[in-house]
Amino acid sequence: MQYINELCTRAQAAKLRFAAADTDAKNRALLAMANALLAHQDEILQANANDLSRARENGYTLSDRLRLTPERVAGMAQGIREVVVLPDPAGRVLSGSVEQGLRIEKITVPLGVVAIIYEARPNVTADAASLCVKAGNCVILRGGKEALESNKAIVRVLRAAMDSAGLPADCIQLVEDTSRESANALMRANGRVDVLIPRGGAGLIRACVEGATVPVIETGVGNCHTYVDESADLAMAAEIVYNAKCSRPSVCNAMETLLVHESIAAQALPLFYDKLREKNVEWRGDEATCALLPAARPAAETDYEIEFLDYILACRIVPSLDAAIVHITRYGSGHSECIVTNSYSNAESFLGRVDAAAVYVNASTRFTDGGAFGLGAEIGISTQKLHARGPMGLDALCTVKWLVRGSGQIR
Amino acid sequence: MQYINELCTRAQAAKLRFAAADTDAKNRALLAMANALLAHQDEILQANANDLSRARENGYTLSDRLRLTPERVAGMAQGIREVVVLPDPAGRVLSGSVEQGLRIEKITVPLGVVAIIYEARPNVTADAASLCVKAGNCVILRGGKEALESNKAIVRVLRAAMDSAGLPADCIQLVEDTSRESANALMRANGRVDVLIPRGGAGLIRACVEGATVPVIETGVGNCHTYVDESADLAMAAEIVYNAKCSRPSVCNAMETLLVHESIAAQALPLFYDKLREKNVEWRGDEATCALLPAARPAAETDYEIEFLDYILACRIVPSLDAAIVHITRYGSGHSECIVTNSYSNAESFLGRVDAAAVYVNASTRFTDGGAFGLGAEIGISTQKLHARGPMGLDALCTVKWLVRGSGQIR
Repeated sequence: MQYINELCTRAQAAKLRFAAADTDAKNRALLAMANALLAHQDEILQANANDLSRARENGYTLSDRLRLTPERVAGMAQGIREVVVLPDPAGRVLSGSVEQGLRIEKITVPLGVVAIIYEARPNVTADAASLCVKAGNCVILRGGKEALESNKAIVRVLRAAMDSAGLPADCIQLVEDTSRESANALMRANGRVDVLIPRGGAGLIRACVEGATVPVIETGVGNCHTYVDESADLAMAAEIVYNAKCSRPSVCNAMETLLVHESIAAQALPLFYDKLREKNVEWRGDEATCALLPAARPAAETDYEIEFLDYILACRIVPSLDAAIVHITRYGSGHSECIVTNSYSNAESFLGRVDAAAVYVNASTRFTDGGAFGLGAEIGISTQKLHARGPMGLDALCTVKWLVRGSGQIR
Repeated sequence: MQYINELCTRAQAAKLRFAAADTDAKNRALLAMANALLAHQDEILQANANDLSRARENGYTLSDRLRLTPERVAGMAQGIREVVVLPDPAGRVLSGSVEQGLRIEKITVPLGVVAIIYEARPNVTADAASLCVKAGNCVILRGGKEALESNKAIVRVLRAAMDSAGLPADCIQLVEDTSRESANALMRANGRVDVLIPRGGAGLIRACVEGATVPVIETGVGNCHTYVDESADLAMAAEIVYNAKCSRPSVCNAMETLLVHESIAAQALPLFYDKLREKNVEWRGDEATCALLPAARPAAETDYEIEFLDYILACRIVPSLDAAIVHITRYGSGHSECIVTNSYSNAESFLGRVDAAAVYVNASTRFTDGGAFGLGAEIGISTQKLHARGPMGLDALCTVKWLVRGSGQIR
């Protein structure tokens, strides 16, 4: 696709110029971006109002995520300021050695050109752009079509700020053609896009994983489990279950399925049920669950497979730790999994055998994010095993390069 | 495909059992594998003789790579012994912190199930299997059809050795159906194959990158350049050029294109030409090259794009360092690139601006491998930027996992 080719060519040209920028130059540009967002707030809010009214006309429903307010624009600016104070992830020496007189160093360098495909969330535009710039990458942003006017306004402001700081505006580009063809072309721009990071729901992620030939980092689908073991402190378990399910059900680290050991189910389930009634949580259980909780609906197989992202909980009574791990292995998406237990050996067994990005003992799965894990900022949560796994901070936006300084060595 | 599904199911089952194996158990299995290869040498050589005679009947030409000898079997066993003494890449604590009372650790763990698609090189079978086992991975091997009998014999021996060491034989499986369909099914086994590593020529790598939906590590295509700068020591440059082109032209770190600064071309090219005449190297040059070297043929655009993997050299005279970098950026495959120079600023500029896995000053690109870079053993050379770049040792066969130990924390 000619249009995507042109964006890629501009990004590749900007990449060579941007590669020479040092940390100070990048930070100056980021501060200029934060200031410019505030200075051009009215323009951004007006563009957003246009998106919102068009979304209303088209009956589009996610308009809370689409909506910007003065507070949210200020939040975007503040987010960028927080990126400024983080250490530069590029240019670090990871290892060094001398072999046959060759001085060999492995250093971190920017990935190069990063493409982000995301939904109608204009805050992601500023957020992703600032993280990419901090790491020294050129970014090609392709947001949802419902947010196009907002994204155009934000990117115009960010590009002008880059330019004012003496850095190439083409380090930040927006795909203004929001057709499916433009997304497909971006997914197949091998040699010109170094990495594609999709951010959004399961459908978007799957489309990228299946359609892309450029390297992809799969993010954010979380079919997370909490297993309440025989020896669990039930009061603690009730708090963890409530928090994992109810504190923010729409996010990927929220619990979707509860697994309970059969020997404590009769005591635990009514307790959990009462606690979750505060949010009118709908239960979908296996036969044993429904026998203990008359209000629970029978669960279908698919209830264990999907993310509800809502006040709905799948539940299964299991005869053992092993059965819980088998269930998680079969249905889990490898995001965040928790055991509530007071058994040391069961805790360690669960930590060792469950194959997921984050495995918890006695804490809510809601902690899985870059902030809580001390990364400072986050470009997404990887659920694949290559390159990065779990919350991805600035480091995940870099790769390595081997520098070899010789004096005529041959072999 | 039912057959590939079954292999994947067996690998997933073996993975859970193998996850509990410690370093000693893995090393015992590796030593058993090395011993068993020697003990069953006759059986392996007989199977290889069958492959060779079938290959001859079918007019297959790469039979040197296909051929096994007692020395080569001994080499395979010795390679495995060398893997035994390397440190275990899994189970290392990479970082740790306490956040809100949560003890958070990032540790290395095996990737899980690794699929390797490769050509008719039976030595890769033992080599890849041993590295995967050392890192705690289950491997599914899909070698070229010409080596099927050899691979079956080797894998039978390796599986029996795993079993004798008390580890699951299904940690090592061979795809005995060498149809294109089996390769395609393996490339699309999402959720059951964690990573696919193709090893082979450009066609094989491209087929995997384009056809796979599982994460792929792209390896081994090397369109490598040597740029001889204005200030180069020409005697040193001649040695480096000769070594990079001629010491082993069939490998990925060999030079394919020579770039020479115009101000020294008249002096340098005849010198290089004489040196490379020792191997009857064929030159394909731009106009300026052909004017200086009457024996050179005019180069077509494609001569700058492909790997010759032979005693053929493309050459271009360039007016500046910048022009050399532009050429490398356009045609290079991001493998290994070299500048020969005596200018400090040009050396540093080349190191900083050339976007490749390994960038050299004054040394042959032939050094790019796991052994020379101090990694001990190598599963391949990554030319992508995700996960690993350049020579990949045992570390590249691991991912990370976050372990979080709490005492009832919620957020």
